[in-house]
Amino acid sequence: MHGYIKADHKDQLTNRLRRIEGQVRGVQRMVDEEAYCVDILTQISSLIAASEKVAALVLRDHVEHCVKESIRNEDEAEEKIDELVAAVERFLKV
Amino acid sequence: MHGYIKADHKDQLTNRLRRIEGQVRGVQRMVDEEAYCVDILTQISSLIAASEKVAALVLRDHVEHCVKESIRNEDEAEEKIDELVAAVERFLKV
Amino acid sequence: MHGYIKADHKDQLTNRLRRIEGQVRGVQRMVDEEAYCVDILTQISSLIAASEKVAALVLRDHVEHCVKESIRNEDEAEEKIDELVAAVERFLKV
Amino acid sequence: MHGYIKADHKDQLTNRLRRIEGQVRGVQRMVDEEAYCVDILTQISSLIAASEKVAALVLRDHVEHCVKESIRNEDEAEEKIDELVAAVERFLKV
Repeated sequence: MHGYIKADHKDQLTNRLRRIEGQVRGVQRMVDEEAYCVDILTQISSLIAASEKVAALVLRDHVEHCVKESIRNEDEAEEKIDELVAAVERFLKV
Repeated sequence: MHGYIKADHKDQLTNRLRRIEGQVRGVQRMVDEEAYCVDILTQISSLIAASEKVAALVLRDHVEHCVKESIRNEDEAEEKIDELVAAVERFLKV
Repeated sequence: MHGYIKADHKDQLTNRLRRIEGQVRGVQRMVDEEAYCVDILTQISSLIAASEKVAALVLRDHVEHCVKESIRNEDEAEEKIDELVAAVERFLKV
Repeated sequence: MHGYIKADHKDQLTNRLRRIEGQVRGVQRMVDEEAYCVDILTQISSLIAASEKVAALVLRDHVEHCVKESIRNEDEAEEKIDELVAAVERFLKV
């Protein structure tokens, strides 16, 4: 099954994910060099916030495209809606 | 200022951070190959959960070592406690 | 504007919200009686988790009804999708 | 076991908890009157954020008093630290 991400979102996502990858490597380096724990924690909370922003962008494109299409075409709309709510629940960990 | 991470936690953290780095690169690849959005979202929620586990481990060592030491030695205990609560607040985003 | 909540979800929500109200009052009592802080924290994390479950249920009905209808009828579908993503973002605090 | 909440925090907590109780009842009323789902979701995310602020305040007093005392008196310091980290983990759901 194929997804759909807006062309200009794709660049944004790629840039953000590269920055997140850099943040993860930064945390690795900090652990390695025994940096101050609170600074490590700050870096981790910042990479989590950045990852959530990436998720929000992917979610928007998913709803705007896939969910909308499936509802319009009456094609597996229920499954798509279930999937969407389940995805949000995984973020809320409910 | 130097932090303190238990020797066996250091290996654990390194392994987990490598896995998280792999997950971030996995998301990059999925975006690139236009994978299904819900699968991308699942991968992101899983890397966030893994990052929170890393944070919990760092937090534990921080409290067990730095905060404890500073309270014992009556050395900047208030600052350390403020810092700790502020770090937790950044995770709760309050 | 009117919302839509499934009849059997309405009872479930009412019951859950009553329990959450009881939990909030429980926390008030604990603060009043100077209960042990960790027990207060546990009660708060439990009422937050319960509130998130309520939100997931409301979200499901909203997508299944309002968002679906607006897409089907091509009636303010963009606004509805924007609103939905913004609502999820408020939970993620992004 | 008794907790410890600063006198001026106690009033603050009581006021905030009353407001949160009002928010929960507000959600009940909105569900009852079939208010617009997105407005219900906004109200729920706002009561969750308020509950997290209450938790942060309780946490601060707990660390400043109980955890500090137990470390100073070398009295169950390990248990107190374990408990503290476990409490934070329940908020992060890790």
